[in-house]
This record gives sequence, C-alpha cells and structure tokens, in this order.
Amino acid sequence: MTISAADLKDALTAVRETVPLVHCITNYVTVNDCANALLACGGSPIMSDEPEDVADITSICGGLVLNIGTLNQHSIEGMRVAGKRAAELEHVIVLDPVGAGASALRTATASELIDTLPITVIRGNMSEVKAVAGAASSTRGVDVNPDDVVTDENLAESAAFARELAAKLDAIVAITGAIDIVASADRAVAIRNGVALMGKMTGAGCALSCLVGAYVTANPASRLEAVVAAIAGEGLAGQIAASRMGELDGNGSFRTYLLDAICNMTAEQLAAGALVEEL
Amino acid sequence: MTISAADLKDALTAVRETVPLVHCITNYVTVNDCANALLACGGSPIMSDEPEDVADITSICGGLVLNIGTLNQHSIEGMRVAGKRAAELEHVIVLDPVGAGASALRTATASELIDTLPITVIRGNMSEVKAVAGAASSTRGVDVNPDDVVTDENLAESAAFARELAAKLDAIVAITGAIDIVASADRAVAIRNGVALMGKMTGAGCALSCLVGAYVTANPASRLEAVVAAIAGEGLAGQIAASRMGELDGNGSFRTYLLDAICNMTAEQLAAGALVEEL
Amino acid sequence: MTISAADLKDALTAVRETVPLVHCITNYVTVNDCANALLACGGSPIMSDEPEDVADITSICGGLVLNIGTLNQHSIEGMRVAGKRAAELEHVIVLDPVGAGASALRTATASELIDTLPITVIRGNMSEVKAVAGAASSTRGVDVNPDDVVTDENLAESAAFARELAAKLDAIVAITGAIDIVASADRAVAIRNGVALMGKMTGAGCALSCLVGAYVTANPASRLEAVVAAIAGEGLAGQIAASRMGELDGNGSFRTYLLDAICNMTAEQLAAGALVEEL
Repeated sequence: MTISAADLKDALTAVRETVPLVHCITNYVTVNDCANALLACGGSPIMSDEPEDVADITSICGGLVLNIGTLNQHSIEGMRVAGKRAAELEHVIVLDPVGAGASALRTATASELIDTLPITVIRGNMSEVKAVAGAASSTRGVDVNPDDVVTDENLAESAAFARELAAKLDAIVAITGAIDIVASADRAVAIRNGVALMGKMTGAGCALSCLVGAYVTANPASRLEAVVAAIAGEGLAGQIAASRMGELDGNGSFRTYLLDAICNMTAEQLAAGALVEEL
Repeated sequence: MTISAADLKDALTAVRETVPLVHCITNYVTVNDCANALLACGGSPIMSDEPEDVADITSICGGLVLNIGTLNQHSIEGMRVAGKRAAELEHVIVLDPVGAGASALRTATASELIDTLPITVIRGNMSEVKAVAGAASSTRGVDVNPDDVVTDENLAESAAFARELAAKLDAIVAITGAIDIVASADRAVAIRNGVALMGKMTGAGCALSCLVGAYVTANPASRLEAVVAAIAGEGLAGQIAASRMGELDGNGSFRTYLLDAICNMTAEQLAAGALVEEL
Repeated sequence: MTISAADLKDALTAVRETVPLVHCITNYVTVNDCANALLACGGSPIMSDEPEDVADITSICGGLVLNIGTLNQHSIEGMRVAGKRAAELEHVIVLDPVGAGASALRTATASELIDTLPITVIRGNMSEVKAVAGAASSTRGVDVNPDDVVTDENLAESAAFARELAAKLDAIVAITGAIDIVASADRAVAIRNGVALMGKMTGAGCALSCLVGAYVTANPASRLEAVVAAIAGEGLAGQIAASRMGELDGNGSFRTYLLDAICNMTAEQLAAGALVEEL
C-alpha cells in the first residue's frame, strides 16, 4: 500500500469542495497565520478559547485543533471543554504540543489532553513529540533540539518510534522537520518537501497543524493520506514561495508568499510536486 | 436626501485631519489588521481589554469599538466597563457582533451590550445582525448563512429590516456582504463596492468595524454618511487590491494590498469609485 | 569613547552567531511582528505569559522582554514571576512601557517592574519614559505627545534627562523617536536613522524592544553598543524598506519590507548606514 498521486489529489479536492469548518484553540502569536492558512487551503476557521463558548463553537465545526503555545489556565480549561464535546461528536482532534518539554505545564497539558481525549493526529517537531511520548529529550524552546533532528541515517529508527507511538496512542503521529514522518500503527511515510526558510518565519508549524485539521476533517476515510497531503502541500508551498524570493526579500515576504502558494495550490501541482515515500 | 460625492470626500478628509484615536476591544485573531487599518485610514489605534485599564484608555479616545470574536469572561467585563465610560463621555460606540448566533455566549453578550449601552453603529453580516435582532437565523461560524445573503431580489426587504432595527435600537445598522446596507430609522443606502477575495482573508470585517469607528468619530454631524464612506472605502480598496494581484499572488498578498489601498486612498478616489445608492 | 563601525558590526555578528533565545511577554496586537523580527535579526523567540509557565520558559532563555501593551492582571503576574526568575539567573531584562502615562494601571505596572526588577534596558517614546520617571507628561495613547518630541533644539537637555534616569535606575535608557537617544549614567548617543513611515504601521516599537533584547543578550560585555546597534539597525531597515516603496505600496507593504530588511541586514550594511553620534 503506497500513497498515490490520486490520493493526494483527492485529499486536496475534498478540502476545496467541502470547506471544512475548523475550531482552533491556539496561541496568539501565530493565530492570524492559522486563520489565513485555513482560508487559503479552502477551509474555514473559527477561534474561541473561553470555556463557556467553546462547546457551542465546536459543535458547529467539523474538526478541532488544540495548540498549546501561549497556553494559560483559562485556555487549558477551554481545551478540556472543547475536546470533550468534540469527542462526543466524534470530530477530528489535532494536537500541536508547542514547546512540550520546555516547561512542566506544557508537558503536563499535552499529556493530559492525550490521556483524556481521542486525539486523531499529533503534529510537532521531534523534541516535542518525544516529550509527549515520555521519552528522554530536551527542547530548545519551540525549536527542535539538534540531537533530535530526523536524518537519512536515523530515518528507519525514527519511523519505528513514530509507528510505536501511533500504536500506543491510537493516533496518527506526524513529526515534522527537514524530513517529515507521518505514521500510523502499521504504516510510515517520509516527506521531503519544504525549505529551511520556513524556520525563519514564526507560525509555519502552527499553520500546518490547522491545515492537517482541515484535510483530515474533509477526508474521514483516508486520514493518513490526508495528513501526508497537508504536510507535503505546505512544504511544496514553501518551495514555491522560496522560488519567488527576490534579492531584497526576507522572512516578511516569505510569509506572504507561503500563504499565496497554499492559496493557489492545485491538486495537479500537489500530486506532481509531493516528495512522498512509503517506508 | 442622497449621499453625494462631497459627503464622501468630507468624511475621509475629516479622518485624515483629526486623526481619531479609537479604543478597540477586539479578538486576537485579526487585532493586528485592525490596528494597521486604523493607521492606514488616518486614525490611531489603542487596544486594551483589562477591566482595570479600559476606563482610563477609553477616556483619552474619541471612539470605542467592541468586537466579540474570541471574547472571554475577562474581556466581556472589559467591554462593560469601557462601554459605560464611553457612554458617560458620549463617545461613538461601534459593536461588531462576530459570531452572534453561533454560540449562546456570543448572542447573549451582543444582546447585553445593545441593551445596556448607547451603541452608535452595529456592523455585521446578515446572520449576525439577525441573531442580534432576535430574528430566526442560523450562522455558519463567523460567515454568513447562505440563506441570509443580501441580493437584488431581497434588497428592499433587507433594507426595510435594517431600517426597522435601526429605529428600534436608535443606532445605525450596517449589514455587510456582497451588497452592503447602511440604515438609520428613516434612510437606507446600498453599497456595491468590494470583491469576493475579501472573504478569503481573515479580518476584513473586523478591520471595517474599526474604520467605521474612526470615520464616525471624525464626523459626528454626519454619521450615516461616515459609515457609508468607511464601507465604500474598504470595498473600493478591495477592488484596487484585487487589480494588483499577479499570477502567483493569493490571500497573503491580497491582505497586504488591501491595507496599502486603504493607506493610499484619496478623497477624490473614494468619491469617484464609491458605488452608493440611496434606497 | 565613541561607538565605532567595528562595535556595530560585532554586535550584529554576535546575534547571528549565538542565536539568542528571548522570552517575550508582550501584547497580542504586535506579537507576531515581535516574533518575526527576532527571527529576522538572527535570534529566536518564545512567548509565554501564564504565571505557572513563565519561570520554566525564562530559564531556558537568555533574555526577557516585558511589554505592557494589552496588559492584564494575569499577564502582569506572569511578568512578576518571569522577572524574578530572570533576575535570579542574571538574564537581560528589557522593559517596554507601552502607554505608560495613558492609564493608571500601565504607569503603576511599569513603576512596579522598575522598582522590583534589575531592568537592563528601558525602551519607549519620550512620553512613556517621562511617565516612568515620574516626570510631568501626558501621553496621547501609545504615541508620543507632540510636546515631548526630541529635536535638535532640546537634544542636549533630553540627553541629560536620559543620563540622569539611567544613573538613577542603573539601566540603559533608550528613548526612540525622530532622533533616538541611548544613555547610560555616563554616556549618551544620538541615532538619526529611521523614517516617518515606521509610525504608519503598528509594532515597529514593540519589535525594536525585542531586537534590543536579542542584541543585549548576545553582547553582554558591550550593552550600550548593542542597544545602539539594534536601534540604528531597525532605523536603517526602515530606510531600506522606504526605498522599496512603489506607487501602490502603503503601510501593508512597508511592514513586510521592514522585516525583509532586518532579515537581510549585514554587518557591513549596518556599519556603513548607521547614523550614530556620541553626545
């Protein structure tokens, strides 16, 4: 079983045709990028973190994204309430454990959400995912620890770790970096799209978790393929954005070009440009 | 009595000349766009939602914008306190009922603010305004319900609804969409500026409520004309932004171009490009 | 003793080589610009304001930036806890007293932070710095009061004020405006980079405080030079951004170009373009 060009096309097309409404409880640093990325891909965003508001909001949506950057006691309670309601409605739930491992509160919150909610997809860098898995690791703030970077040398081992964690949590595990890994209990896919410039702007990861939310919501019968399409799609958009960069352009223009490329991405473009390999 | 080119020119010129300082209690998704849109039009923004801070801040401003997106118990209390002080000072108060109808808390908060504060202008899409009016409606998150879209077919009926609500609330009612309606108790104006791309970025509506705040603050003697100028102006800026779009541009570039066009808009440009019709 | 081209080059190079991790507790209006400016200059941002989270986060960083725009009771407590931990670790602490003088809470919070924490640098406009100093002033929201603008006529007097305050607080005082002043107890430097367009976008000041945080963290042995390099660097980036402005460009494009120019700034460019004068 491998990911085909048709799988990727279908995943993108389903997002554009169904306009999945995604409820995001996310940090205030990159929330605007999250909303615009959702609109760019063909979905529709709604943000709400107030515990008294979130159950109603999540009820009218198809998916829920929980991102623990700039978490606070109030928004954590909002995540609990929204997650409980999303679980009752069998909605997609994506967890982005931003900075897990960097603070006790972030690690504990990510762990609590995993233990209490039927998470559909976890997406983070390797340091964050290791922290969530209880594996020994140390993070460098919200960036991956250099020791944790996925390389060709440790790819097989990293994929095995991701599959094991996916089995343990009954979730799709997406570890993103220079090489991305998407794994379920019995499958693992490597993705080699993307450019280093994506690390020079804030929010590429947060936006990606929202794209994953939209893709999985729109493709309930092929969730792993949907996650792969979302990640390959953002990486490919990054490549297109990088190819537009003029001499005076920097991370400001890159941020704009990335959104533009997500917005203009066609199913054919994604299928032709995705660098996906079943492991 | 009709809106003339001179009315529109005067409204814009007054904003540029008086630099109205507008206090915004608004959501954290689009707050940066709100601040930059206020600066672009010639006003000056200040944001504050802490109940202990807002009375002082509102006191040094000329207008107050209350936007209930990402509301929370703390910011709702901030809206109450700021609104009370703004009322005492007879400041302009604009209400943007983001997502009213989508959750009980949002509908109740919008209703409470309308019942307790002398709101000058309510600006929302038709679903939100219907929710605020207590009319039967259902919203699709923060977007208008397709059944509620204003069209040429229902324009007269929609304008009558807006006028009635304006009379009931003693406020200007601005319902924005493909065709915008601005109504007081005895007048209604349709505006046909704007482009569909404005729905592909987050924040065009939130920014518009802030522009309305600046325009009405700067034009106390001609409030309806001011609201019309602000709405026609943003719509025209959207058209200018759309005309700049290159092949690779998407909603990222459009967001930038929209701000640029608001920033560069002249009184003559507005008067020449506004598509305004007294109903 | 004067600031040399080599001092400026060294300061920028140290930021690029050491990638200082800066913890920001800042307002939600411009937080995205703050994060992208830190990435652009060569640093790395992490945002957290929850009192239970901030001590862990600050511990893994090298510097802390406290910005009181959109402060609330919860984030003020976060500033206290983070500041205490940063002080124990002898980290750089930068205070940006946004809107001090505009509300009692903002003035009191800025004063409390100054009284209780070993602040390394205070950066604000003259009205804010005067409010912090307890001097008579009145602010116009988050903008400088016209009466407080630093000019050639009052430059010597303004520099004397800055030096006195620096001595009293045992901190570097950076007063930014058309002419910027950076002072320690025994030195004062004037900087004449920058363009008026920087006042047409929100966040240039907030981002600058973060750049100052990164520069001082990366240059512990030459703090005054580091502050001067950060301020001259952003001003020069503003000039470069202004020179890119096309006919249709406004504050949207300028915001992007400013980040771009910070991102692409070389040590040679900074040394050649900085307009710095020891007073």
